Amino acid sequence: MKLLNAVGPNPRKVRMFLHEKGIELPLEEVDLFGGENRRPPYTEHNPAGQLPSLEMDDGTWLGETVAICEYLEELYPDTALVGSNARERAETRMWLRRVEFNITEFAYAGFRYAEGLELFRDRILCLPDAADGMKRKARAGMEWIDGQLAGRQFLCGDRFSLADIVLYCALDFVGSVGQPIPDALESLHQWFDRVNARPSAEASLSPSWREIGMRL
Amino acid sequence: MKLLNAVGPNPRKVRMFLHEKGIELPLEEVDLFGGENRRPPYTEHNPAGQLPSLEMDDGTWLGETVAICEYLEELYPDTALVGSNARERAETRMWLRRVEFNITEFAYAGFRYAEGLELFRDRILCLPDAADGMKRKARAGMEWIDGQLAGRQFLCGDRFSLADIVLYCALDFVGSVGQPIPDALESLHQWFDRVNARPSAEASLSPSWREIGMRL
Repeated sequence: MKLLNAVGPNPRKVRMFLHEKGIELPLEEVDLFGGENRRPPYTEHNPAGQLPSLEMDDGTWLGETVAICEYLEELYPDTALVGSNARERAETRMWLRRVEFNITEFAYAGFRYAEGLELFRDRILCLPDAADGMKRKARAGMEWIDGQLAGRQFLCGDRFSLADIVLYCALDFVGSVGQPIPDALESLHQWFDRVNARPSAEASLSPSWREIGMRL
Repeated sequence: MKLLNAVGPNPRKVRMFLHEKGIELPLEEVDLFGGENRRPPYTEHNPAGQLPSLEMDDGTWLGETVAICEYLEELYPDTALVGSNARERAETRMWLRRVEFNITEFAYAGFRYAEGLELFRDRILCLPDAADGMKRKARAGMEWIDGQLAGRQFLCGDRFSLADIVLYCALDFVGSVGQPIPDALESLHQWFDRVNARPSAEASLSPSWREIGMRL
């Protein structure tokens, strides 16, 4: 098994997940900026052309960050980050979806349609006119989650989970490309600082993040 | 355990899932058009104010359609619709995310920002100017999935899964509110007809769908 890895918030999520669980996997670097993931042979294995992918033991590739993490959790259940029983897993998946559908996907779209346009315009259908609206949606999602985090350590209460990793890596990235967490959102800031202080946060950053000038 | 149910493509996904698995759950109807899900007491249990919710045996509520289905699959593993092993579950989750992040979320946003605006304008931040762009994104996603479905029965090959249910209920709904599958997408049409012919497709429609004039 190996991870097809690159710079980017999504590969970082898997790296942070692995670090939290204490799993080491061989990493194979893919040239995202050069578009290696958008053409064969990469797309023969992952037709969506996204990063990361997990090459499984039978040689087939699994795409989609959260599907990869769920799979790794099934293989390595210790230090549960999805959950150690059906009830916990359900709670994690609920919060994952709330953060992805209300915050992170809008924030990424806002980036791809504006600051990231040169990189993405030939890769996906970009809607530059919608960039500001996408960022407003992401901010509205941050405001909502700020209320939910009041008095809570993590999204699933006292339990750190994959949902925190997914939200943290997204907010750390978009914060470095013009979409910071608004100052007024104190609970969200406190939560962010709490996750940011974990060793896995620093350890999962790409070695080239400073050079690129983005937290990924 | 009971399902907080309503009209709508998301509650329909859970009803179709239950029908495919042969599970019966008590349903409690919530007045979505009247906004009962957007105010207390509903929002005390599901602060996202969305439908459906699952009231679990300990009295707490679980939100988010796919999280609910994953939880039910863990309780009732027979007739697996996520998967009967880690490899199958990974594949289902990968396709689920591909269809949701590339097609269904954009199609729903296109609806909410245009045809559904009167219902949604006081419930969520709506971006009417972005409605056409959202629909273009959904069509681009349909074109991509059409290529993936060529020569394939279902998203996970011969295995019918939750990913098919999620895509089918979304496309059936948006097709009834001005976002039909483009004629040229033959593989997607064939896949749609195949899912539409399953008894669960008809059985999961809300009794009032004709009256409302939408497939939900």
